[in-house]
Amino acid sequence: MKKNYMPTDALVSPRFCGIKTFMRTPYVTDLEDVDVAVIGVPFDTATTYRTGARFGPAAIRDMSTTVRPYNIDMEINSFEHINVVDCGDMDIIPGYIEDTYEIIERECAKILDAGAVPICLGGDHSITLGELRAAAKKHGPLAFVHFDSHTDTVSSYFGKDYCHGTPFFHAIKEGLIDPAHSIQVGMRGNLYEPNGFKDSEDLGIEVITAKEMHQIGIEETARRIVKRIGDKKTFLTFDIDFVDPAYAPGTGTIEIGGFSSHETMELINGVKDLNVVAFDLVEVAPMYDPTQITAFLAANIVHDFIAMVARKRK
Amino acid sequence: MKKNYMPTDALVSPRFCGIKTFMRTPYVTDLEDVDVAVIGVPFDTATTYRTGARFGPAAIRDMSTTVRPYNIDMEINSFEHINVVDCGDMDIIPGYIEDTYEIIERECAKILDAGAVPICLGGDHSITLGELRAAAKKHGPLAFVHFDSHTDTVSSYFGKDYCHGTPFFHAIKEGLIDPAHSIQVGMRGNLYEPNGFKDSEDLGIEVITAKEMHQIGIEETARRIVKRIGDKKTFLTFDIDFVDPAYAPGTGTIEIGGFSSHETMELINGVKDLNVVAFDLVEVAPMYDPTQITAFLAANIVHDFIAMVARKRK
Amino acid sequence: MKKNYMPTDALVSPRFCGIKTFMRTPYVTDLEDVDVAVIGVPFDTATTYRTGARFGPAAIRDMSTTVRPYNIDMEINSFEHINVVDCGDMDIIPGYIEDTYEIIERECAKILDAGAVPICLGGDHSITLGELRAAAKKHGPLAFVHFDSHTDTVSSYFGKDYCHGTPFFHAIKEGLIDPAHSIQVGMRGNLYEPNGFKDSEDLGIEVITAKEMHQIGIEETARRIVKRIGDKKTFLTFDIDFVDPAYAPGTGTIEIGGFSSHETMELINGVKDLNVVAFDLVEVAPMYDPTQITAFLAANIVHDFIAMVARKRK
Amino acid sequence: MKKNYMPTDALVSPRFCGIKTFMRTPYVTDLEDVDVAVIGVPFDTATTYRTGARFGPAAIRDMSTTVRPYNIDMEINSFEHINVVDCGDMDIIPGYIEDTYEIIERECAKILDAGAVPICLGGDHSITLGELRAAAKKHGPLAFVHFDSHTDTVSSYFGKDYCHGTPFFHAIKEGLIDPAHSIQVGMRGNLYEPNGFKDSEDLGIEVITAKEMHQIGIEETARRIVKRIGDKKTFLTFDIDFVDPAYAPGTGTIEIGGFSSHETMELINGVKDLNVVAFDLVEVAPMYDPTQITAFLAANIVHDFIAMVARKRK
Amino acid sequence: MKKNYMPTDALVSPRFCGIKTFMRTPYVTDLEDVDVAVIGVPFDTATTYRTGARFGPAAIRDMSTTVRPYNIDMEINSFEHINVVDCGDMDIIPGYIEDTYEIIERECAKILDAGAVPICLGGDHSITLGELRAAAKKHGPLAFVHFDSHTDTVSSYFGKDYCHGTPFFHAIKEGLIDPAHSIQVGMRGNLYEPNGFKDSEDLGIEVITAKEMHQIGIEETARRIVKRIGDKKTFLTFDIDFVDPAYAPGTGTIEIGGFSSHETMELINGVKDLNVVAFDLVEVAPMYDPTQITAFLAANIVHDFIAMVARKRK
Amino acid sequence: MKKNYMPTDALVSPRFCGIKTFMRTPYVTDLEDVDVAVIGVPFDTATTYRTGARFGPAAIRDMSTTVRPYNIDMEINSFEHINVVDCGDMDIIPGYIEDTYEIIERECAKILDAGAVPICLGGDHSITLGELRAAAKKHGPLAFVHFDSHTDTVSSYFGKDYCHGTPFFHAIKEGLIDPAHSIQVGMRGNLYEPNGFKDSEDLGIEVITAKEMHQIGIEETARRIVKRIGDKKTFLTFDIDFVDPAYAPGTGTIEIGGFSSHETMELINGVKDLNVVAFDLVEVAPMYDPTQITAFLAANIVHDFIAMVARKRK
Repeated sequence: MKKNYMPTDALVSPRFCGIKTFMRTPYVTDLEDVDVAVIGVPFDTATTYRTGARFGPAAIRDMSTTVRPYNIDMEINSFEHINVVDCGDMDIIPGYIEDTYEIIERECAKILDAGAVPICLGGDHSITLGELRAAAKKHGPLAFVHFDSHTDTVSSYFGKDYCHGTPFFHAIKEGLIDPAHSIQVGMRGNLYEPNGFKDSEDLGIEVITAKEMHQIGIEETARRIVKRIGDKKTFLTFDIDFVDPAYAPGTGTIEIGGFSSHETMELINGVKDLNVVAFDLVEVAPMYDPTQITAFLAANIVHDFIAMVARKRK
Repeated sequence: MKKNYMPTDALVSPRFCGIKTFMRTPYVTDLEDVDVAVIGVPFDTATTYRTGARFGPAAIRDMSTTVRPYNIDMEINSFEHINVVDCGDMDIIPGYIEDTYEIIERECAKILDAGAVPICLGGDHSITLGELRAAAKKHGPLAFVHFDSHTDTVSSYFGKDYCHGTPFFHAIKEGLIDPAHSIQVGMRGNLYEPNGFKDSEDLGIEVITAKEMHQIGIEETARRIVKRIGDKKTFLTFDIDFVDPAYAPGTGTIEIGGFSSHETMELINGVKDLNVVAFDLVEVAPMYDPTQITAFLAANIVHDFIAMVARKRK
Repeated sequence: MKKNYMPTDALVSPRFCGIKTFMRTPYVTDLEDVDVAVIGVPFDTATTYRTGARFGPAAIRDMSTTVRPYNIDMEINSFEHINVVDCGDMDIIPGYIEDTYEIIERECAKILDAGAVPICLGGDHSITLGELRAAAKKHGPLAFVHFDSHTDTVSSYFGKDYCHGTPFFHAIKEGLIDPAHSIQVGMRGNLYEPNGFKDSEDLGIEVITAKEMHQIGIEETARRIVKRIGDKKTFLTFDIDFVDPAYAPGTGTIEIGGFSSHETMELINGVKDLNVVAFDLVEVAPMYDPTQITAFLAANIVHDFIAMVARKRK
Repeated sequence: MKKNYMPTDALVSPRFCGIKTFMRTPYVTDLEDVDVAVIGVPFDTATTYRTGARFGPAAIRDMSTTVRPYNIDMEINSFEHINVVDCGDMDIIPGYIEDTYEIIERECAKILDAGAVPICLGGDHSITLGELRAAAKKHGPLAFVHFDSHTDTVSSYFGKDYCHGTPFFHAIKEGLIDPAHSIQVGMRGNLYEPNGFKDSEDLGIEVITAKEMHQIGIEETARRIVKRIGDKKTFLTFDIDFVDPAYAPGTGTIEIGGFSSHETMELINGVKDLNVVAFDLVEVAPMYDPTQITAFLAANIVHDFIAMVARKRK
Repeated sequence: MKKNYMPTDALVSPRFCGIKTFMRTPYVTDLEDVDVAVIGVPFDTATTYRTGARFGPAAIRDMSTTVRPYNIDMEINSFEHINVVDCGDMDIIPGYIEDTYEIIERECAKILDAGAVPICLGGDHSITLGELRAAAKKHGPLAFVHFDSHTDTVSSYFGKDYCHGTPFFHAIKEGLIDPAHSIQVGMRGNLYEPNGFKDSEDLGIEVITAKEMHQIGIEETARRIVKRIGDKKTFLTFDIDFVDPAYAPGTGTIEIGGFSSHETMELINGVKDLNVVAFDLVEVAPMYDPTQITAFLAANIVHDFIAMVARKRK
Repeated sequence: MKKNYMPTDALVSPRFCGIKTFMRTPYVTDLEDVDVAVIGVPFDTATTYRTGARFGPAAIRDMSTTVRPYNIDMEINSFEHINVVDCGDMDIIPGYIEDTYEIIERECAKILDAGAVPICLGGDHSITLGELRAAAKKHGPLAFVHFDSHTDTVSSYFGKDYCHGTPFFHAIKEGLIDPAHSIQVGMRGNLYEPNGFKDSEDLGIEVITAKEMHQIGIEETARRIVKRIGDKKTFLTFDIDFVDPAYAPGTGTIEIGGFSSHETMELINGVKDLNVVAFDLVEVAPMYDPTQITAFLAANIVHDFIAMVARKRK
């Protein structure tokens, strides 16, 4: 008999009550009948500026308890259609990037093999490479949608291959994503080199800068993403610093000139019918989020990711 | 002889000097010759998520001292035309909602009976029901303008009638407001049920969602409010979570995708000629406002409410 | 077959990983074979000053993950001898004290009836009355050890019987505790009346003030407690404001002149062989605990409570 | 008929209610029948390190509302014996030290001439010179008790006479205090010169360093102060940085190795029968006091000052 | 041989490493071959509300380390074309405005006489008068671009000529700036008098209010500035409270209804070809900037100022 | 001619002025004639709980500017006798422990080879292993004094050799320190195993637990350290979590029941004549230090370390 997992009802149990799982969905490690597995990856060893994203998953869970289940923009109560669970956190190894990549790949593979969609809560952006390795092993090279203010396609920092500024250089080199169906959105901030964004373009990825996006608007941006991706199996990664620091201060490497929470949610809504097989939301650093607005926004974005799966699977 | 109450002059007495009353108006409990009575209702017992709004009135007063008297948008120095005083706080009873409703109703009645317009500083949104009881007893069923991200028209939570999510269900049921001249503006966030906003509509209240408002713009929103209300005697309630958490983080139940302070002030300006007989500003929770921007915004909104009275009474 | 519950091993899974239960013990609601049930009571409606203790259980759990299992002062790894679980939070009703008392009594009764010792994480101090009702129903009138800076034996506030300043007046009146074997320790701060502490003494409770305790020392204080209690079945309640605000700022009603964390732990160690059938730790308010030292201290105290049970039951 | 001023009763009006005056005493500017006038001096222009003490008076008032009226250490409810009022703040001139000195002197003179004892809430320590000028004009050269971690007897900083490090050099030079009956207690921290404390001794003031005080204990320290002062008319100034930063972080120039709140209150208790004609409490800087423990301690100290007057005048 | 100063390379030395100079440029006091001299003026004595801007230069330097050298909007890596150094801070005299003006004038003169462009980091806005005296002595009366929410053209406060609300009244009176080529942009907030902005206009300065700017847009605003200034030698002063407090909370006197960081950077870009001979960026107060977004924005603005010089001088 | 380095004079240049080097000593990279080289090691990759110590060196420097040069406890103005400089930070590689060890060893060797005493500012405690390698290469196996609440002698975590809980296991195994002249002081907190402290003892190191130290007192503790060490060349490492979190909250892994700042300084004073050839002060994490008391305490401790060298070398 199919299992039926539901979040706690906030009209019965106040939202501040109970063990903090994502939106108070059940904490489940047996993946049978699971459609979406939210899982934390509390790893921030690869951070090049302000650390603290290891506490991101806990902070997102804390504020997720106040998100209500009917998703008004997506027009669905996902939990009535699919089984969403919280698998807890991966036991990553702080201080050791490559060992952690193996753990991430193994844990994601379990979720994917069970037929579920993983939504990883970071952690710093380095973790996405581990997730991509698992997803590409399962599905082959993936289309790739990347919301961020940084391209993260530098080849190395300080003479080292792996940090949170390099994962997508390696993802391309390892053949995990298909550049022809890849797009990076929201890029801004100053650069180390004049050709900063060209790095990505040289790798074959389309780039929509923040400047361009401010000019063409949210709707047109969404259209370009959809056009670039088509109906390919897609990996969607969301770095919270895509959002302007006024709306999301709680992250390691802020960049001014970003987007409001309203624009962000409109944009996600505009790509809601993409065929996403794995998501992540990274770089929430709660020590820089004294008012918890960043964690709450992150929880809402993850709620939208869940709805994207529910719309496909219902 | 008519009394003449003036706020302290900040060109003589620095803004950080003196006992903290609203805009350093006199602390007065005898209501003779008073046009506007600002009064605190430091009650947060009915809060369903983050508490702390009991310290809202003090926080608003603190930051109000830096608001200057000539209201540039409203084109008036209200204090030259009407008597504005701070009546201090009501002695509410923490932990006891229904007893507190009686106190609120009694204290508001005193102000209304003295011919003054009350501006209540919350406190959580439950307090508005007490204020409405007093105002409707004085003036009959009122037109109703409600700025918020939540409708607060749920019938009950946890099996209980009264909390900060239910006041307007009861206000309708008790006949305190006239749904045909009632409007709720800024509604957003996810819901418990698909028909969340329909609850209000079923009660006969017009709803302008945040989504709609982002589309039609501030001016058109103001026009619809004015059209809905006409020249009826009106109760205006403002929940600070109408504003986006980037601009107003210091509140109990934030919702993303809200409005900027500029949009907020434009909207209030657009309805400045409504015939408002009682106001409140609720849900400022200073422990989530480390930079005091929420309290300062709230003080500016109250300053606009005062100007609305001054424009009518001058 | 007897169940065997163990906390997560921090040498394998980093302390910041995983769903936040108390010391990462299993989240369990079936009480079979359970020796100690840690359970949250996130209720702060009865608070007379700074609210926020509803977030106390979550904050204590967060910091408890960094407490290691071998209790050096108590000379025991409790988890090797008894089963300790986290039962999550009670679904209290915010805003409604008496209804919540019924819920607390019912939930504690379940734990006691299963043969386990409840350790309730507050929440404000009002909750202890509900716990005492359950414990006295099970065990008869109890000996009572109370660490606090306030006696909480006022008969009423604002004309109302129940708030966090009154539970022990009612506990005596309801016959839940045996005054002849009751003692309050750490009392200090200014008072409403000269006979403030005499209130307690008139009720038959022994009082050791902070002033006295600073004079006689920790060891003698412990001796007096042990002498007063003897081997009676005991309820132990610990208000975190017993500790000096330098060591525990994160609480609603601080009092200067309190005790260090070292003195506090020494004192608990001195009463470690009392026969305690139910514990609580109340009044942790994390919004006033920016450095998390209060929540961490609270977690250590609860760890000692667990050890007290383990020493008895092993 | 003699006036009778009483603070608000916290068993009727919750402590967080009402306009924030010191301990919710009446805000009164007519000094007839007043015994103690609490008055703010929100001046921090003379600060040499972290500014912000201009918000000190407001912060102390905020937390004073939770101090209860019966002073247990002093064994008196002062308010039943003497009239205590809050006179608000002096309209000092930010940026202008010498002009402000004139204002302070004038405002203090008014209080002294009305036969009341002024308790000034700073503001930085420079303000004490203005107070001393008024007090010495009234009473002649005064005995002087100074709790602080710094002597504040440097002759000049940056080539300028006046800052918060110099007031007592000038007080001696102007003949405002009688060195033979003056004592500085708690001195510590590193120095600009080896003879740092000798500066004070050369001026004729007795100095008890923190090191010495840690050795001889609180009681002996109190004895020495009493011996030095005798029954002379005394000015008592208390810089909150006397207290260790663990207990009082919210100040501009912290020094480690200080005293606990318990030790501080014991020491004040030990000098409670001094004949003090004017007090101040300075250097509370609330931006460095996120948990409000400094402001609360300051309010308790001022409460003790009031009790010292009440014990004399009752 | 010409010197060649370069900032530290962040691909070699992590951005959080090293002594904190502006963008990790060399700390240099010999001005030979220097094109841009960044220098701190940590003076906040003239502040009329929240103090703390004396820590502004340090906060801006801290966050400037994470700004990358290629300025994408300005399309230049300034450091490859001009020599930019950090000269440290001026040794201002806290508490003494007029003495400090002399120091500022002298220090700025040194930079100007060396042929470099000074970029002063405030400090409160009073400091600009000292800078203008030096710049006008060097270059004659200057064109003047002023971004702010306040005109700072009041003639006096509290009977005193100098504070951070008066510098530009005096600059006009002293003939330091040429009103016919002066413009103030972003003015908003309530006023002391109806004719508040008219003060400036009476002095001959053009004013673009925030209200107007919200209507005409960024591009048109930039056009008007350029038209007003032409190719005159210009002084550009930027008060961080020009920006909305959601984007820049860390300042002394916030005003709602301001501009986003995106709009701010667009506007600066629109005036990038002005012939600016001296810049400042004032009023960053880090104690109100817990997430450091204000300091980071300020650093980016200064980076743009550097680029404006580089574009002219390359 | 011998160089003569002096810190900036705070009676001339206010303490908040200037580039932030340790106590405003010169930033110098040429080590000729240098006696003490303060150098930052901003590495926190090896942290097992709360990250952020990478910002420790900057925070300590910021607060060190308010430490005055005459060290009253040590009875010396060190700067009049020896040359103390700030060498900036080592360019460690975030995310890579073993590569960083090489950098630390190389940089420390440079200082030692120049005849100077290095004082490293951490960074997490893992860095000490790199320092010890350099020091032992220079001086042979060293005597070792370790102030901390943790022994940091675990052999591995998560299957990995290196993290901040393991450095001294490896130091012993590598023969860098001489166990017979090694001592760990302040050990406390719960443990993973009953024999937690025995681990160290098995390695041959003497351990004084916090419990023991609270019993025997500071003086006796100092005596035991001196007895254990004798006149051997010594490495002294100070983990700020030795101090109680009330006095030093700003660190990654707090333990209750620690020592006051007064006790800490007394203890250091008691060992002031040890022959220390290298020091470090680690684990200051400023994001958990909102009032800066931890960083200020750390700066004072480093000031004492400097004095220990000055007393030897003068």
